[in-house]
Amino acid sequence: MFAPIPIDDPADPRLAPYTAMRERDLIGREGRFIVEGAVTLRLLLSGASRFATESILLAPERLDSLADAISAVRAPPPVYLAAKAVMSAVAGFPIHRGVLAVGIRGSAPDPVALVAPAPAPALVLGLAGLTNHDNVGGLLRNAAAFGADAVLLDAETCDPLYRKAIRVSAGAALITPFARLPRGADWLGLADALGLVPLALSPGGSETLADLPALPRVLLLLGTEGPGLPGGLMARARTVRIPMAAGFDSLNVATAGAIALHHLARPHLHRARPHLGPPPGG
Amino acid sequence: MFAPIPIDDPADPRLAPYTAMRERDLIGREGRFIVEGAVTLRLLLSGASRFATESILLAPERLDSLADAISAVRAPPPVYLAAKAVMSAVAGFPIHRGVLAVGIRGSAPDPVALVAPAPAPALVLGLAGLTNHDNVGGLLRNAAAFGADAVLLDAETCDPLYRKAIRVSAGAALITPFARLPRGADWLGLADALGLVPLALSPGGSETLADLPALPRVLLLLGTEGPGLPGGLMARARTVRIPMAAGFDSLNVATAGAIALHHLARPHLHRARPHLGPPPGG
Repeated sequence: MFAPIPIDDPADPRLAPYTAMRERDLIGREGRFIVEGAVTLRLLLSGASRFATESILLAPERLDSLADAISAVRAPPPVYLAAKAVMSAVAGFPIHRGVLAVGIRGSAPDPVALVAPAPAPALVLGLAGLTNHDNVGGLLRNAAAFGADAVLLDAETCDPLYRKAIRVSAGAALITPFARLPRGADWLGLADALGLVPLALSPGGSETLADLPALPRVLLLLGTEGPGLPGGLMARARTVRIPMAAGFDSLNVATAGAIALHHLARPHLHRARPHLGPPPGG
Repeated sequence: MFAPIPIDDPADPRLAPYTAMRERDLIGREGRFIVEGAVTLRLLLSGASRFATESILLAPERLDSLADAISAVRAPPPVYLAAKAVMSAVAGFPIHRGVLAVGIRGSAPDPVALVAPAPAPALVLGLAGLTNHDNVGGLLRNAAAFGADAVLLDAETCDPLYRKAIRVSAGAALITPFARLPRGADWLGLADALGLVPLALSPGGSETLADLPALPRVLLLLGTEGPGLPGGLMARARTVRIPMAAGFDSLNVATAGAIALHHLARPHLHRARPHLGPPPGG
């Protein structure tokens, strides 16, 4: 069980990690991140998330509906209760939903350790130069929906634990394994080392997505909508396109990624993901 | 040719349709809508859009790069030039890109007139109860990308010409034919009258999207992520699902719609869309 701790003073030092939330989005939080809303908090507290919870900050009227999820944690974190007006004063803008938490990033996983060795099937998403938090959040959500094993990010791609990216991901950023590659990392060398077919999605791709055969181990590479993937990568990877109407061949990169993940994931969806519960229909 | 008209005074009555832009988003614009940015303005001015342009408001430094698109219009609308500071004062918030225009809605098209009669192939998107402008904008974009013939909206679905919806649609709201159905409209009766197979996308659908046979004439129905499509509709339509991973079966509705459109559109993409130029590779 846990004993919630009422706090009335927005200047209470225990609320320091929740202060000036928008400004801190920009300067970083020293190994912490912010979670907003009940659905995302439940994912953070569940066994599906690899992240520890440092503290929870709730409007008192939200406690009852979340007590089950908090009690289920082996050693529940401190749960602070503060009126929405106090929460808003701390955060610096209105906190309508009355549910916040601070998570701990922990050590960064090794990209190689996230991918099961061959011959197990593997679906890995690689993001190159994606600097828009909506797109990265959306892609984490789509990766989770289609059971991708991992998402790998190059040095330029923005942080999936940025507050807005978590929100757009519908919490998927907390449960989809992801890892950061070092600057200048060699995607094709990595694919080779992991035994994955590198597949670069691009409007100029030479194969049509719908005609691709089943690929049991694949690294799907996505670049920005503008410059796209680097030319050297495109020249050496297997390239695939999504046919679109003449005159408006423009899909958002997160949407294009979802279409490709749907096609590539089909055989994967029947594998159990132990940390997420039984397979569909199982 | 056209002669741009410099304006220095934010209170100039010719700029009235651009004033208090956010407030006017909420109260409406009496048959007008606002277009932002060069890409969207080019679509508005092109033959692909069915909408007339009432006026254009540009920062002077943006004129040169848009003069070709404006000159190509048979009777170019007035083009006002105002410094970004003046534009921002008129709009009520910073206009960074310096490109605005006012379009005229004109008369609403008849839904039935938008769909080519059988046996021509037809792909029509039906939106039921979608009240989020990001989702509606994203779906208009996806409908354009996959060459949908028309988008039909029930009375509850929000306006594709709302400023944010146009922006999220990447301008597709201006070129994808759409029409509004009367309140309480009967989707299945409409599908029957138009000779379209009604296909309702739902997590509980009885068929799997990827296993669907080619459907030359189809009405793809999408509802909200929460309540979904009405039960009566689901009971009588052909229902289809996108298989997802256990534990996180949640796609954004615009993303789910894109995946379904990609599957359904394939035979359509090889038809010419005369107002959008030649077919791919043609």
